[in-house]
Amino acid sequence: MSILVVGTVAFDHVKTPFDERANILAGAATYFAIAASFFTQVSIVGIVGNDFTAEHERIFDARGIDLSGLERRKDGKSFRWTGEYGYDFNTRTTLDTQLNVFADFQPRISPAQQEIPYLFLGNAHPSLQRDVRQQSRARLTAMDTMDFWIQGTPNELRETLRCVDLLIINDEEARQLARDPNVIRAAKAIMALGPKRLIIKRGEYGATLFGEDSFFAIPGFPQENVVDPTGAGDTFAGGVMGYLAATGSRLDEDSLRKAMIYGSVMASFTIEAFGTERLLALTREEINERYRQFKTMTYFDGIEHSF
Amino acid sequence: MSILVVGTVAFDHVKTPFDERANILAGAATYFAIAASFFTQVSIVGIVGNDFTAEHERIFDARGIDLSGLERRKDGKSFRWTGEYGYDFNTRTTLDTQLNVFADFQPRISPAQQEIPYLFLGNAHPSLQRDVRQQSRARLTAMDTMDFWIQGTPNELRETLRCVDLLIINDEEARQLARDPNVIRAAKAIMALGPKRLIIKRGEYGATLFGEDSFFAIPGFPQENVVDPTGAGDTFAGGVMGYLAATGSRLDEDSLRKAMIYGSVMASFTIEAFGTERLLALTREEINERYRQFKTMTYFDGIEHSF
Repeated sequence: MSILVVGTVAFDHVKTPFDERANILAGAATYFAIAASFFTQVSIVGIVGNDFTAEHERIFDARGIDLSGLERRKDGKSFRWTGEYGYDFNTRTTLDTQLNVFADFQPRISPAQQEIPYLFLGNAHPSLQRDVRQQSRARLTAMDTMDFWIQGTPNELRETLRCVDLLIINDEEARQLARDPNVIRAAKAIMALGPKRLIIKRGEYGATLFGEDSFFAIPGFPQENVVDPTGAGDTFAGGVMGYLAATGSRLDEDSLRKAMIYGSVMASFTIEAFGTERLLALTREEINERYRQFKTMTYFDGIEHSF
Repeated sequence: MSILVVGTVAFDHVKTPFDERANILAGAATYFAIAASFFTQVSIVGIVGNDFTAEHERIFDARGIDLSGLERRKDGKSFRWTGEYGYDFNTRTTLDTQLNVFADFQPRISPAQQEIPYLFLGNAHPSLQRDVRQQSRARLTAMDTMDFWIQGTPNELRETLRCVDLLIINDEEARQLARDPNVIRAAKAIMALGPKRLIIKRGEYGATLFGEDSFFAIPGFPQENVVDPTGAGDTFAGGVMGYLAATGSRLDEDSLRKAMIYGSVMASFTIEAFGTERLLALTREEINERYRQFKTMTYFDGIEHSF
């Protein structure tokens, strides 16, 4: 089954301790869609400006990604972000954010897109996310958010959380949203706000999946070669939703667990190069090989010792 | 087989955001020995002062722990530490450290103790650790260390690392020891210094095991009820070594993986109460039950999807 993703198609300027790149094709919808395109058909709803060229379009075309819902504006530039990473890649500072044409984006979903069964609401104003959710007849909706909305628009965010199935956020966001430093308690509090399932991304430490009575955790892939962590979270979400959609799964535990491994596998590749460079060069065999590595690196004998 | 542990038997004063306790029987050797005593026979080599009473001795006796190597001094107090935890338990501030009788501790290992096959060198001056290592004829030696020695006595530490099989340290210590912010690269650099295996403890994020060509990671036990994290690391080491000794294992991958689960299980109990309170009330069935929970919370279907 196919996926609709709503979010930014943007250009990033990224500074790392070792290198720097400008005008990287990026944004949540871009990373998500390219990752998910390895699993199923993806349609993007978003907006770009006059800096989005035929060359950029070809990148999506090559992955079979439907851009019919991508609004093109001639009177402005695309969303632009400039950021810098600290020497261990664990700290990120935003140097500049330009909303540009994204500032007054009002997504309209076509009748065909309304029927797409899997929906991902990329990080955006929660009212915009909810508006899209209400236009869609998706059978499974996941969303992301960030500290800016948790602090700035808490009421709107709560309303949006009530109408999604799966929330995918990071560690700090979870603690902040629940106002509880204990992630396990925070997860329970967040699920009480609406989402039936919660995935917490923990960067190099992996990710955890919470259900009403279940807990699942995976480590991060042991990555020596971090070039640019930008987009890892959206790539992760793309892998998760891509697997769920490809298998027609809803929220059953087995599928969600496998989906998280695929999400982690995809994210582990994204950070090996700037932007979507590594993802675009990826093969299905590389994905499967890393999936098997996740099994190897988490396996232990489950029979306890009788002592 | 049995274990010899060298380290502090101490008294802690712990302040948490919710409570405070003074004169807690603590120290690396205490936590380690009590945890390991659930698996096998343990002997402590250490030193205590006149504040160590018959009541404290009974705690070790009840767990069958041999204190014949515990030196008693009448002319001073035991090692004492006062610390305070931040509101999320992720930050810890040392308010006071009194070495007391530990200051001029010169451990002598009896002929019988020299033959004990498993040796754990608790956190101490690396020269003291090495001295004990050289007195012992253990077939497997593990050790801990901390930032204080990594920064203060780097050369002595390197000499000690050359004569141990397994190093068990935390995340920050690993980065610091290898002078590399990437933990995966750091692990390789550390193993090049001597230890054939390295376990990195990552607090609520779990732990990772490194070998020359292997990587294994486990999550932290999802703990809502953190009362006092003190001693979790030493308890973890006690569970790891306890399992290895009980099964007569050396450094084979399967045993080390199971040992890490037992280490995590034991540590997850320690933090549920102040000091060794929870450990002392623990049953074998509780340990096995939590071991099974680790299997449940890390299992996923290893067969990749053909898409």
